[in-house]
Amino acid sequence: MKGFFQLISSTEFLQLFSRFQPLAGVQIPLAEADGRILAENVTAPEQLPPFSRSTMDGFAVRARDTFGCSESEPALLTIVGEIAMGSPGQDITLKPGQTARIWTGGALPAKADGVVMVEYTHLLDDDTVEIFRPVAPGENVIRAGEDFETGQVILERGRKLRPQDLGVLAGLGITTVPVYRQPQVAILSTGDELVPPDQTPAPGQIRDINSTTLAALVREAGGIPKQLGIIEDSFDDMLAACRQAVADADMVLLSGGSSVGRRDFTLQVLEELPSSELLAHGVAIRPGKPTILASVDNKALFGLPGHVASAIVVFHLFVRPLLRLFSGLPADHGLQQIQATTTQQIPSAIGREEYVRVQLSWQEPGQPPLATPIYGKSGLLSPLVRADGLLVIHRDSEGLDQGASARVLLFP
Amino acid sequence: MKGFFQLISSTEFLQLFSRFQPLAGVQIPLAEADGRILAENVTAPEQLPPFSRSTMDGFAVRARDTFGCSESEPALLTIVGEIAMGSPGQDITLKPGQTARIWTGGALPAKADGVVMVEYTHLLDDDTVEIFRPVAPGENVIRAGEDFETGQVILERGRKLRPQDLGVLAGLGITTVPVYRQPQVAILSTGDELVPPDQTPAPGQIRDINSTTLAALVREAGGIPKQLGIIEDSFDDMLAACRQAVADADMVLLSGGSSVGRRDFTLQVLEELPSSELLAHGVAIRPGKPTILASVDNKALFGLPGHVASAIVVFHLFVRPLLRLFSGLPADHGLQQIQATTTQQIPSAIGREEYVRVQLSWQEPGQPPLATPIYGKSGLLSPLVRADGLLVIHRDSEGLDQGASARVLLFP
Repeated sequence: MKGFFQLISSTEFLQLFSRFQPLAGVQIPLAEADGRILAENVTAPEQLPPFSRSTMDGFAVRARDTFGCSESEPALLTIVGEIAMGSPGQDITLKPGQTARIWTGGALPAKADGVVMVEYTHLLDDDTVEIFRPVAPGENVIRAGEDFETGQVILERGRKLRPQDLGVLAGLGITTVPVYRQPQVAILSTGDELVPPDQTPAPGQIRDINSTTLAALVREAGGIPKQLGIIEDSFDDMLAACRQAVADADMVLLSGGSSVGRRDFTLQVLEELPSSELLAHGVAIRPGKPTILASVDNKALFGLPGHVASAIVVFHLFVRPLLRLFSGLPADHGLQQIQATTTQQIPSAIGREEYVRVQLSWQEPGQPPLATPIYGKSGLLSPLVRADGLLVIHRDSEGLDQGASARVLLFP
Repeated sequence: MKGFFQLISSTEFLQLFSRFQPLAGVQIPLAEADGRILAENVTAPEQLPPFSRSTMDGFAVRARDTFGCSESEPALLTIVGEIAMGSPGQDITLKPGQTARIWTGGALPAKADGVVMVEYTHLLDDDTVEIFRPVAPGENVIRAGEDFETGQVILERGRKLRPQDLGVLAGLGITTVPVYRQPQVAILSTGDELVPPDQTPAPGQIRDINSTTLAALVREAGGIPKQLGIIEDSFDDMLAACRQAVADADMVLLSGGSSVGRRDFTLQVLEELPSSELLAHGVAIRPGKPTILASVDNKALFGLPGHVASAIVVFHLFVRPLLRLFSGLPADHGLQQIQATTTQQIPSAIGREEYVRVQLSWQEPGQPPLATPIYGKSGLLSPLVRADGLLVIHRDSEGLDQGASARVLLFP
């Protein structure tokens, strides 16, 4: 019979991604770089801070002048000035016995090597201050270059940029950064029964659910979705749409009916594409078995199961890892994983990995949450809306007992 | 002495937020709604699916006609047609003994109440099919309205919309959704020593790091940052800038030097604002003590500590919860929390909650990760770049022993 799939394991499926490469690097403004992945090491073009700074309000001193002082025997220093914020510290040079007022973040005067906090001082008059506590050289001071020296690698290729990273780059005057390009993902729905969400379906027709769902999933995974709409079940239309999609995008997601006939159809179209190579044709997971993967050079085409619940599982397990790889991240799903305790028996079948939608109820802090499977026919949407994540059952397992500990992938 | 703060606990600080309300609802296109929070319940305007559908490829039957059949005694049914995808099933009415070909997702013919999978059938000729397995009424069928009935609440107010939720809305023809407006957050940096990141600082000047960092944090927390730039240390300039910021935004973040003088200054400006009310003036946490909160009606103004490392802690603990409240979420930080094991003693001080930057190293699955504190002077940036999160030490604790279990808030 036609249409039987040659199943590979989910691990084997992921191994197929070794043929794909991250996308090229692009230079983007710092303000848009949060969450993007560095495509090159970034080194400090200058030292940070650019000058030695006080970390306290108080008095800049030559530390040696404070040695041995105490509440009962304060050191007496002569105030020779104040370092205004933003003014060069080097305008003042401390001679032995001299001090200058300074504020948090102010530049140290020449020859100063420590700052006494204002709390440990007492003004005798406008020109003289008593110091009650000694400071060590370097105390309450960040010296020039203490954060980053010129030429030092600040952030490494492959790093996902966080707000604090952007702050450091701003501090060094780096206002654009090299990051991997975001993958463009063409989304095609196939099916003569489909109409767009903004149309009223005639009897026998339904609105396209997959395009909207997949576009949001792509965006969450760091890609840029391009919804190409609904293609009729015609070989020529589908081939033309796929050719265009491959030309315009880094990845193509084809989703549509789950019928055996339509699967064969998708296969034929993918095989017919110039330079295409069929990499996978069925995977030993449930749901998600009828998943197809093809490549055209460094571009990937997925044939996803038609039911949106199954398509979501395949998206998280396979599409997300490849989007992450394209974006410069490790080729894993990157979802948060937790251990949960089952509230009831969950049967499974030997030979396929099972992903069971579950609802979690959180217990005491430190206790694993309880996972309750949400069953429902494969075409239903309502269980999806109630689920918090996917409980994983190993392919060599016949199922889980009530009270068993199991891994759950949390929906992002 | 001037400038001492009246400290409240972090719990008391969060309780101040009870005076603030979520922002108004707005209607936005479905394609932009992922991650946004529903401001109203959404009910189904029609039933879904709109008609009874097959979940398999096979033959639509009157279930009763298959009762008792088996491999050895198949039921013989007459094929009266095929339901093409997208065509109305009701064009065909099954009489007893009749069947129609159907595909996954196809509309059931009138009087049919079950579908036999193609695997359990055998064609005798173009008009006759043998059925080897009985089906129960409703088997392999999703009946009209089984997912959602007209008028049923699909998604509740306060829900964070996920890709699958958008899919369901698309399926129901709902192409715009009511969500809470995203908070607009004005960001002001104060300090005569500051220059924008794209300028070369003169001696004694440094580039503004906080604006870039805070803008990215705001965006991550679901807000819309508005960087208003650097304000000089002048009362009139700061008051004018704050008045404008309060008029244009839902929240104002003031950050600048950590000096006592500058703090008093921020306080004076916030007290001078028309209709302003000072809500907090110091919080018993470290870092983050000199945090100020004021309100003008439903708008919030934060005076953040000047050091970016401290400002980030205060952002996660207090600014984030209020941004979430404004967005329609619970007023908590919403960060992922884990239990970790300390690799060394971590001293703390009684009377203040301590947030220690830590680097995590992950152990075997199921084992808590190891947390190593990253110490460094408060003005340094490099420890921030290396940290994975913040380890929490209770205010009544003198510190943690090596090997202790502690809660860590993960940076998003």
